[in-house]
Amino acid sequence: MVKYTDLINSLSTEVPFVGPETQERSLGFEFNTRLGANESVFGPSEKAIQAMQKVAATDVWKYGDPENLELRDAIANKMNASRHNIVIGEGIDALLGYLVRLTVESGVKVITSLGAYPTFNYHVKGFGGELIFVPYQNDREDLESLVDSATKHGAKLIYFANPDNPMGTINSSEKIEKIIKRIPEDCILCLDEAYVDFLSDQFIPKIDIENPQVLRFRTFSKAYGLAGARIGFAFGAREIIKNFDKIRNHFGVNKIAQTGALVALRDEIHLREVKERVKLAKGQIEKIAIDNDLSTIKSFTNFVAVDCGKGGQYATKILQNLIKRRVFVRMPSVEPLNRCIRVTVGEVKDLAYFADQLPVVLKETL
Amino acid sequence: MVKYTDLINSLSTEVPFVGPETQERSLGFEFNTRLGANESVFGPSEKAIQAMQKVAATDVWKYGDPENLELRDAIANKMNASRHNIVIGEGIDALLGYLVRLTVESGVKVITSLGAYPTFNYHVKGFGGELIFVPYQNDREDLESLVDSATKHGAKLIYFANPDNPMGTINSSEKIEKIIKRIPEDCILCLDEAYVDFLSDQFIPKIDIENPQVLRFRTFSKAYGLAGARIGFAFGAREIIKNFDKIRNHFGVNKIAQTGALVALRDEIHLREVKERVKLAKGQIEKIAIDNDLSTIKSFTNFVAVDCGKGGQYATKILQNLIKRRVFVRMPSVEPLNRCIRVTVGEVKDLAYFADQLPVVLKETL
Repeated sequence: MVKYTDLINSLSTEVPFVGPETQERSLGFEFNTRLGANESVFGPSEKAIQAMQKVAATDVWKYGDPENLELRDAIANKMNASRHNIVIGEGIDALLGYLVRLTVESGVKVITSLGAYPTFNYHVKGFGGELIFVPYQNDREDLESLVDSATKHGAKLIYFANPDNPMGTINSSEKIEKIIKRIPEDCILCLDEAYVDFLSDQFIPKIDIENPQVLRFRTFSKAYGLAGARIGFAFGAREIIKNFDKIRNHFGVNKIAQTGALVALRDEIHLREVKERVKLAKGQIEKIAIDNDLSTIKSFTNFVAVDCGKGGQYATKILQNLIKRRVFVRMPSVEPLNRCIRVTVGEVKDLAYFADQLPVVLKETL
Repeated sequence: MVKYTDLINSLSTEVPFVGPETQERSLGFEFNTRLGANESVFGPSEKAIQAMQKVAATDVWKYGDPENLELRDAIANKMNASRHNIVIGEGIDALLGYLVRLTVESGVKVITSLGAYPTFNYHVKGFGGELIFVPYQNDREDLESLVDSATKHGAKLIYFANPDNPMGTINSSEKIEKIIKRIPEDCILCLDEAYVDFLSDQFIPKIDIENPQVLRFRTFSKAYGLAGARIGFAFGAREIIKNFDKIRNHFGVNKIAQTGALVALRDEIHLREVKERVKLAKGQIEKIAIDNDLSTIKSFTNFVAVDCGKGGQYATKILQNLIKRRVFVRMPSVEPLNRCIRVTVGEVKDLAYFADQLPVVLKETL
């Protein structure tokens, strides 16, 4: 028999990632509305679509530029940085995996919040790391305690999302700027900013890009509406970024995605429109919640955590019944966050359907 | 300072992957013709293009199905296998990386041919494995000696490409079928079939898909003309395939690529046309070689190794001078293969340009 590594043998064969398509297949019907994966129903820039269509017709037979140089230069230009501060990857998921591979091996300790992004945890376990969890405070990731825990345990990585997923909350930029000064010397703060494009500038922390203890992750999957394209980037100190070249899949980024991201980045009008529509749609979700005597957590993202008011078991039933009624939604995995369901913003018709189904579900759920 | 793992610190920071775009930037001009990366100048199926354009317009805001189920079912159906025998990935490169991660750790021995696919070697080094090289015999990968070497060294992986890259040769299917019976019990033959779609059936070995000692890799980058889409697959025993789910980037495959591959797979007419055009174009390259008193290696792929006849240094100069004359070509990296340059098939205009430039280059190269 083939011998896998001890690490591989220690990993669970259970697949932690269940897409809506998998659910549809096991349910035997298709969802009417897709509000569960924090995708952008408003789609990408029309200009990006046209550019992608052109690449599909003329250039997809070529491998993409393994340096992703045009896109790196465009991003660098936008943030007044150097291309050497930026690495492009097959979505934040792949880039998180690379960072973990650079730093984590058997026994290395890693700090995250209890209930935060599970894919990060998947990577840490996949490279033999030991996860240490810090609870949320008031539905917010507790950066101070994350850093304290890293100091106490001699951790090499801290995962921190701002804005947060699944609660949609933020920490103030002043607080973040202050606390990162206390990160232990040999530790990196992995700052996941997947939802940063929904924020106004005042909420985005200012961090020296050459600070070797912070690496920031951004994506074209959320506000830019390109989740299916699988393209994101990390930026930070050149010394960290250059290490990605030792291990990354150099030809891994889809050429259509390279172009789509580049054009999407330049279409600031579309981004502004999306932000406006997200704001309106969040207002809609808040109104639907209020109409049903439920409360919501103030969201800084493109989704809203709706507090079902009666703990985790109850919210789970609400979720299951919404799914049965063809509304794809998800929810946090742990107490006390799991008193909420997480509803991504939708088009008017999506939210109208949700508004129709929610009261029925609340009535039928005991 | 941030502490990387000892393995990461041991890896070279030199980037082994140089795309034609990188060369163009350092040369200061664009290539006239792109014959260096074994891409398919004939592009993908027109139906696949249209399907990709539709996804770009309507569905790219959604994450792709993490199970890649439709595509796996279509492939399984075509080869009379089960979806559980198939894993989809971000090109063969990513899948090779996953297989290496499953089996290789510090000190594990891996066998490959001296001068074979460098990306495989990159992954093995990246996970701490020890590469053992077996020389080509008569410009062909020597499967018998590869297996002997694996037995002698207790290797866990053997890399073997059929058809081969960079020489374009094959081993007979009977020979492959016979020799795989001698693979050591705890070893996997990593059978890279990137170029298999250019072969006629008689040259494709018949191997029990549940044989736990062979894993085969195929791609949409070559005959299907979708190199820029980054999508390929591995197939073999369920027991191996299911282990990929422990570590792979579940949401890593681009949604446009999922659809493009699915439609491309169904368009058998296009595939047949491409094979025919490749055959004709190879004849053209062979004629150009003869016209210049050079010989060629009989090719079973979409490229031809042209023997420049005077060893590695001379061929390197020919290559450099072709590049200066705006012909993008590549060549094998080691003796004695590096007496050749490797010319990918092109459109009529591409090969006409090559035919114009080659005699000039031969005249100016001493």
